[in-house]
Amino acid sequence: MVRWGGVGLGLACLMAGPGMAAETKLDLMPWPASLTVSDGRLIVDAGFKVAVTGHADPRVDRAVARFAERLRRQTGYMLASPRIEDVANAGLEVHCEGPADALPSLRMDETYTLEIAPAEAKLKATTPFGVLRGLETFLQLVAWGEDGFFVPTVVIKDRPRFPWRGLLLDSGRHFMPIEVVERTLDGMAAVKMNVLHWHLTDDQGFRIESKRFPKLHEMGSDGAYYTQDQARAIIAYAADRGIRVVPEFDMPGHTTSWLVGHPELGTGPGPYELQRRWGVFEPVLDPSREEVYQFLDGFLGEMATLFPDPYLHVGGDEVEGKPWERSPEISAFKQAHGLKSNHDFEVYFITRVSKIVTGHGKKMMGWDEVLHPDLPRTTILHSWRGPKALGQAVRMGFEGLLSYGYYLDLIFSAATHYAQDPLDKETAALGEAEKARILGGEACMWSEFVSPETIDSRIWPRAAAVAERLWSPADVRDVDDMYRRLEATSRHLAYIGITHRSSYRPMLERLAGPGPLPEALVDLADIVEPLKEYNRPQTMVYTSLTPLNRLVDAARPESDVARRFSRRVDRYLAGPNATDRDALRADLQGWREIKTQLGSALEAPPLREIQPLAADVSALAEAGLEALAYLDKKQTAEAAWWERRAAILKRPERPVHALEIAVLPPIRRLMEAARGPSK
Amino acid sequence: MVRWGGVGLGLACLMAGPGMAAETKLDLMPWPASLTVSDGRLIVDAGFKVAVTGHADPRVDRAVARFAERLRRQTGYMLASPRIEDVANAGLEVHCEGPADALPSLRMDETYTLEIAPAEAKLKATTPFGVLRGLETFLQLVAWGEDGFFVPTVVIKDRPRFPWRGLLLDSGRHFMPIEVVERTLDGMAAVKMNVLHWHLTDDQGFRIESKRFPKLHEMGSDGAYYTQDQARAIIAYAADRGIRVVPEFDMPGHTTSWLVGHPELGTGPGPYELQRRWGVFEPVLDPSREEVYQFLDGFLGEMATLFPDPYLHVGGDEVEGKPWERSPEISAFKQAHGLKSNHDFEVYFITRVSKIVTGHGKKMMGWDEVLHPDLPRTTILHSWRGPKALGQAVRMGFEGLLSYGYYLDLIFSAATHYAQDPLDKETAALGEAEKARILGGEACMWSEFVSPETIDSRIWPRAAAVAERLWSPADVRDVDDMYRRLEATSRHLAYIGITHRSSYRPMLERLAGPGPLPEALVDLADIVEPLKEYNRPQTMVYTSLTPLNRLVDAARPESDVARRFSRRVDRYLAGPNATDRDALRADLQGWREIKTQLGSALEAPPLREIQPLAADVSALAEAGLEALAYLDKKQTAEAAWWERRAAILKRPERPVHALEIAVLPPIRRLMEAARGPSK
Repeated sequence: MVRWGGVGLGLACLMAGPGMAAETKLDLMPWPASLTVSDGRLIVDAGFKVAVTGHADPRVDRAVARFAERLRRQTGYMLASPRIEDVANAGLEVHCEGPADALPSLRMDETYTLEIAPAEAKLKATTPFGVLRGLETFLQLVAWGEDGFFVPTVVIKDRPRFPWRGLLLDSGRHFMPIEVVERTLDGMAAVKMNVLHWHLTDDQGFRIESKRFPKLHEMGSDGAYYTQDQARAIIAYAADRGIRVVPEFDMPGHTTSWLVGHPELGTGPGPYELQRRWGVFEPVLDPSREEVYQFLDGFLGEMATLFPDPYLHVGGDEVEGKPWERSPEISAFKQAHGLKSNHDFEVYFITRVSKIVTGHGKKMMGWDEVLHPDLPRTTILHSWRGPKALGQAVRMGFEGLLSYGYYLDLIFSAATHYAQDPLDKETAALGEAEKARILGGEACMWSEFVSPETIDSRIWPRAAAVAERLWSPADVRDVDDMYRRLEATSRHLAYIGITHRSSYRPMLERLAGPGPLPEALVDLADIVEPLKEYNRPQTMVYTSLTPLNRLVDAARPESDVARRFSRRVDRYLAGPNATDRDALRADLQGWREIKTQLGSALEAPPLREIQPLAADVSALAEAGLEALAYLDKKQTAEAAWWERRAAILKRPERPVHALEIAVLPPIRRLMEAARGPSK
Repeated sequence: MVRWGGVGLGLACLMAGPGMAAETKLDLMPWPASLTVSDGRLIVDAGFKVAVTGHADPRVDRAVARFAERLRRQTGYMLASPRIEDVANAGLEVHCEGPADALPSLRMDETYTLEIAPAEAKLKATTPFGVLRGLETFLQLVAWGEDGFFVPTVVIKDRPRFPWRGLLLDSGRHFMPIEVVERTLDGMAAVKMNVLHWHLTDDQGFRIESKRFPKLHEMGSDGAYYTQDQARAIIAYAADRGIRVVPEFDMPGHTTSWLVGHPELGTGPGPYELQRRWGVFEPVLDPSREEVYQFLDGFLGEMATLFPDPYLHVGGDEVEGKPWERSPEISAFKQAHGLKSNHDFEVYFITRVSKIVTGHGKKMMGWDEVLHPDLPRTTILHSWRGPKALGQAVRMGFEGLLSYGYYLDLIFSAATHYAQDPLDKETAALGEAEKARILGGEACMWSEFVSPETIDSRIWPRAAAVAERLWSPADVRDVDDMYRRLEATSRHLAYIGITHRSSYRPMLERLAGPGPLPEALVDLADIVEPLKEYNRPQTMVYTSLTPLNRLVDAARPESDVARRFSRRVDRYLAGPNATDRDALRADLQGWREIKTQLGSALEAPPLREIQPLAADVSALAEAGLEALAYLDKKQTAEAAWWERRAAILKRPERPVHALEIAVLPPIRRLMEAARGPSK
């Protein structure tokens, strides 16, 4: 997929959808298909017990044990033996009606109902997978009130809108240790995502052990790869949480790491070295050679056994055709086979790979580029290009998935992702059968700029907004309510072990050096965001070994403080009032002092690069305060003021610190309002 | 041990010891036996490599792999294949001179030398255990400077002062999951502690699986126990870090949990129920019955096989003799055997248990109460009573350990623990051979008031001060320097995965409920401490199921903010100056506003109990500001002012919130100074 061009996603302005019970203030995410709240409470105290009835399944037993542990963490409770046999004494009865396949599958039944009465709750599901979903809902309902913890009395009938709700984890570019994969799965389960798309190979690393071709991982990974035992453990860990694992082996491009150990698969003589830079590279498989298909048959056969899911993703994106054009043998081959373009040549390759995949009993998936009428209709088209391409695929009879709009590495807001629907105006004209072939989507965490320390804060909580888009009814679209629930979900995820919150201050402390963390550094970090789209790599040279330990890595993709400030500015501009004015002033005064308060702390080597940023923030806040004073006095600022101050609104194009000031747009609005209507 | 009376440890005033290279500002803890610093730096960047030479040992290989992972975490680096064969290209050469036993032992050789030059570092150790210690030292030296991360050029020759440097983890009262035990071991290794004293049984729980007597753990644990496989995994995990695991099975008291499944071992007919309260309870083994010894022979034999360390702790503390006195059979038995007191009776019991323990090839340990001349001199006396009792034991020819002064659950300051030395004025008169029998000591984390969520903040960083006392030369005693290094160590421990810092704000967020965490709540939590000694249980009824999720549980045992404020007050009172005055005023002004700023947040049910605390803090800060104003104007406060304000210094005796205001003593000093000399 084109990931280095300018991918622009407009932030659509959303109407509050119908059916949102905003008055309930429940912190559920994703919002359930149907919900009725009444005015009671079921107390959840340290003596809370769970009984399991119906169809016996060890997955349910393990889920209940995890549920108890999660309840401990959320509440700080000591629960003694929470699981009991006696339904009459249970606070929660978990009833599983029937069996399910040994592994989660595309069409697994995730339906559940959760009825909470003042004396007891009952969770009922057709299969163990529904039980998993319902237990997560229960945990999200637990709140601290008058009599300790409780859950409100509700009746929830829930099922997903789309059957495929995935997260792509890119272990290729930066290796992610097992514990990162596990906690990512825990987070996914909490927001009812059900597919881990595991991007296991790329130019920078081949991350899965191959017993058949060990040079792949031995020479292609810097020693950072998953053993097959580890992969099996992850598959089991995911399955226990109702999550499928779909591996991706990207080809014929993005294959430098394969060629380090197996140069004979490429177009040149080699030797090849692992890529340390980011981008699209020339090394590519040679589709003209029969040995390449023999190799792939062996390798994919091995992987087809290791990964039990029926689907296998072969990538197919971003092929750099130049090496093909340079080779006289390949040119001759293309001519002999009537392949006019590189695209034809890639289609030839993918069509053959498709036969290999099918031969091993799997269905193939690929990115937009692989789309071709000759492929079997069991193929899934995975679209980074957007709903139009997706619509084209399903009209051709393929099933499809959307990832356009869900690229977490673009550092867009949750609202941006939330606005993207797999079924939108581009697909509105599709027939019902065609629409049904749109299976859902996947949030994508490409890993150029994430490390094990920072990846959680890049995935979470924003991925939860995608999870809701894919699970909840289409009319659940109220952005303000989404953000309210997203904040609660963010905390909730921390109890699960996601480190997006806990890593924040330690990273700032590392930057600041010994002694107490200057709160002004936190204040600054709270209102900046990493550059969006792919602007960060334009600020300096990044390699796969560049430390990701700077302010830009600590800063959150989306500033809650800025979002709240921005909303308050809008409210104030719509109707000036003292409450908002005072709050805005207090914020601005605080930010104005950041530079002074940081003082010599900015001399610490790791912080020197943000000296201009701190100065900009303080100057911007000063301008904002002046604008607020004009507005408060109902005066229009003189032209000289604007001329003097407008410069601060033009941020350096490519600051090395790679940050933008998230409160700049609302301060700009204040300033523009103070300036009065332009002539 | 008496743990419910008033145990008072005076905070001795310490002289700065000789030999402390205060000018170096290195963050080492424990401080090494010998250290020379020079003016160079060895750069530690993402290309940093480690080579291993000398005696090959898989423990060293695993330690180097962990070292690389730790370096990643501390720095945020991506390290590609840090381990290399080529010494010439290595930033660090790890050289292990010879082998060591399969398991760490009391007399293992932990010596190492670490020489860091600008171009390379060399760590040399006699055994793999010395390598472990030296790698921790290296990691503590890593700092961020001008050219990225580096270590200073040093020559360190290091070895421990005492061979036994333990931490008691009480899994009996509150069960601690495996991950807590593992991260505790990681923390211990980081500060060079080498014995996990695992208190596995107590009145509230029997936490280890017995295959021979399964009713012990099945009926005595609420289902919360370690399987034997888990225990073996912990022993291996500890051994890999050079840490021994010494289990304790406390008897004949503290045995209610044994009697639930095996009432026949007790003095009464039963049935027995697990204790939910805290204290010393009546249920006790019956030493008059031969079956009890047969049972113990079977059980201890099983445990002697499971736990490979030569030592086995049998407790022996706090026996409630009443049930023995009530039984006519026991009275007859005592008379028949010439046992005049309950103490004699216990000695009889312990002497027989000692034979059982010895019979299984182990050496026995016990608390002060077991001391008796008839015991074999291989017995270790573990003293909670203090150096005098310890001196008595070693004079009798026993070896001994000190835990008096190292009870972390008393919530004393690090300085208090740091002041306690196993060799102090009580033992000064001992001969060299007697002194050599004082093996070291153990910090004790009794678990009445800790949960898996809070235990880290109760152990760390204070246990590091004990670790230094037991490792470093006796003259390393500078308290200010200890605190400087303790703060750095606290951060360092967070990178290892200790949750003492990361759990703080989430616990406050849970209390505060939805929305942004009020910073005033953090400000308040920052200057309060849990009640000391055993005053907390006097404020309300606590059971083993009471949630430990309140402000008192989030608050740190020792407030860094209060300590810094207190030092500044002293400096200001010694020589008034504008800098300190302004800083004190800013602090006091901030605290004065806490009540107002918290405002309606204090209406949230979980925070209601701290309403009086917030009011007290604000009033106290107000009084402090007034005192500061008098002092600043060089005026003496009028008597009426003192009369009006002194009331705030008298805190409620037993507040239900169980907190004390840690800045009260320094504010009192300000107020007293403003009042002038009393007449």
